[in-house]
Amino acid sequence: MNRTVVTVARDVLAATREEAEAFRARRAQAGTLVVNLLSSPGAGKTSLLQATAAHWQGRYRVAVLVGDLATDRDAQRLAPLVDVVQMTTGGACHLEIPLVNKAFAQLPNCPWDFIFIENVGNLVCPASHDVGEHLRVLMLSVTEGDDKPAKYPKMFRTSQTLIVSKLDLLPYVPFSVAAATEDACRIQPDLTVLTVSALKGSGISEWCEYLEAQRRQRVLAATD
Amino acid sequence: MNRTVVTVARDVLAATREEAEAFRARRAQAGTLVVNLLSSPGAGKTSLLQATAAHWQGRYRVAVLVGDLATDRDAQRLAPLVDVVQMTTGGACHLEIPLVNKAFAQLPNCPWDFIFIENVGNLVCPASHDVGEHLRVLMLSVTEGDDKPAKYPKMFRTSQTLIVSKLDLLPYVPFSVAAATEDACRIQPDLTVLTVSALKGSGISEWCEYLEAQRRQRVLAATD
Repeated sequence: MNRTVVTVARDVLAATREEAEAFRARRAQAGTLVVNLLSSPGAGKTSLLQATAAHWQGRYRVAVLVGDLATDRDAQRLAPLVDVVQMTTGGACHLEIPLVNKAFAQLPNCPWDFIFIENVGNLVCPASHDVGEHLRVLMLSVTEGDDKPAKYPKMFRTSQTLIVSKLDLLPYVPFSVAAATEDACRIQPDLTVLTVSALKGSGISEWCEYLEAQRRQRVLAATD
Repeated sequence: MNRTVVTVARDVLAATREEAEAFRARRAQAGTLVVNLLSSPGAGKTSLLQATAAHWQGRYRVAVLVGDLATDRDAQRLAPLVDVVQMTTGGACHLEIPLVNKAFAQLPNCPWDFIFIENVGNLVCPASHDVGEHLRVLMLSVTEGDDKPAKYPKMFRTSQTLIVSKLDLLPYVPFSVAAATEDACRIQPDLTVLTVSALKGSGISEWCEYLEAQRRQRVLAATD
């Protein structure tokens, strides 16, 4: 008896990719810019979001989906300022779109202007996961050292924006903004580089204006 | 024709576990303390190792196996002080024992007193991988925030030692050494906590004495 063996090759990641694409398209149609915020642990993601929300003072409808391995401490810090949903990964080192979708479903049904996805603090693994964002923003604090772009290239290569944070600590640490920017832009020539100190409030208005322009360009113009 | 199906259940991780155990045992027999050094990116692992080597000034035979996703910048920093082998993971987020074994084989054949394994900067994934160490040392810099033990519990739970680093920056950042220590010791009650500033040199002699005592206790006494 002749037997024919049929090999079925299935792209196991295709479903995830489609889910991320669909999330991105639906949010754009609703006029929402989705920002995936990435960094090492403690680079200041939550502080930046607190400063951003305070700067806008209710001018926009803002929600944060915040990812952590454990605890809801970041969500507690943000809750007085914005709508927030805590995603606890239970040990996983990055966020994926199914968890983001579930968290989004817990938000009030509302035409959000901005949704921030605060990823798990990790300069490696989150680079490999599309969570349905329009804009990938990477934060690098000056205390981490200006050698990080060359040492963690994928994270820099896949981001559109680099925020150099904790600028208030620059006098006390060996860090060159010029060297970090040069290395980062060699890896990703289209990178936009901003500097902030969330503690002192410097650079926050420029960052907020940048986000408003990104929303007009990536979401509002695209869906006109 | 009768056919018997035999299902072979194989623990795919057993080989890795055995390789780590064998590495640990062989190094102990040679009088070598193997230290696995872990932290977020930029917490100061390389700076601590530079300060450690400088403090000992050739009193011990010290080698460093240094892990990075890309570049050999850390190895270049350490090469003037100690024997060093760079392990480049090519994007992988942690070290595993086969790579450590390969790197060790590149060192001169010598009865080392201390071998440091400088892991990839990542506060999540390296916690799950035994690389054949006798002592797991976690560094947390004060700029990362004192909420990290609760947010990254596995890393603290699996370590024997916590080094709070960059103590010179304490006046400029919101960080309580007491709060971080309390949270960390709630997760791992046997944790030894040390503080250092590699930049200013404070805490380095205590750290070096601690390592000498750990070598006597975990390696020399055990193999007498």
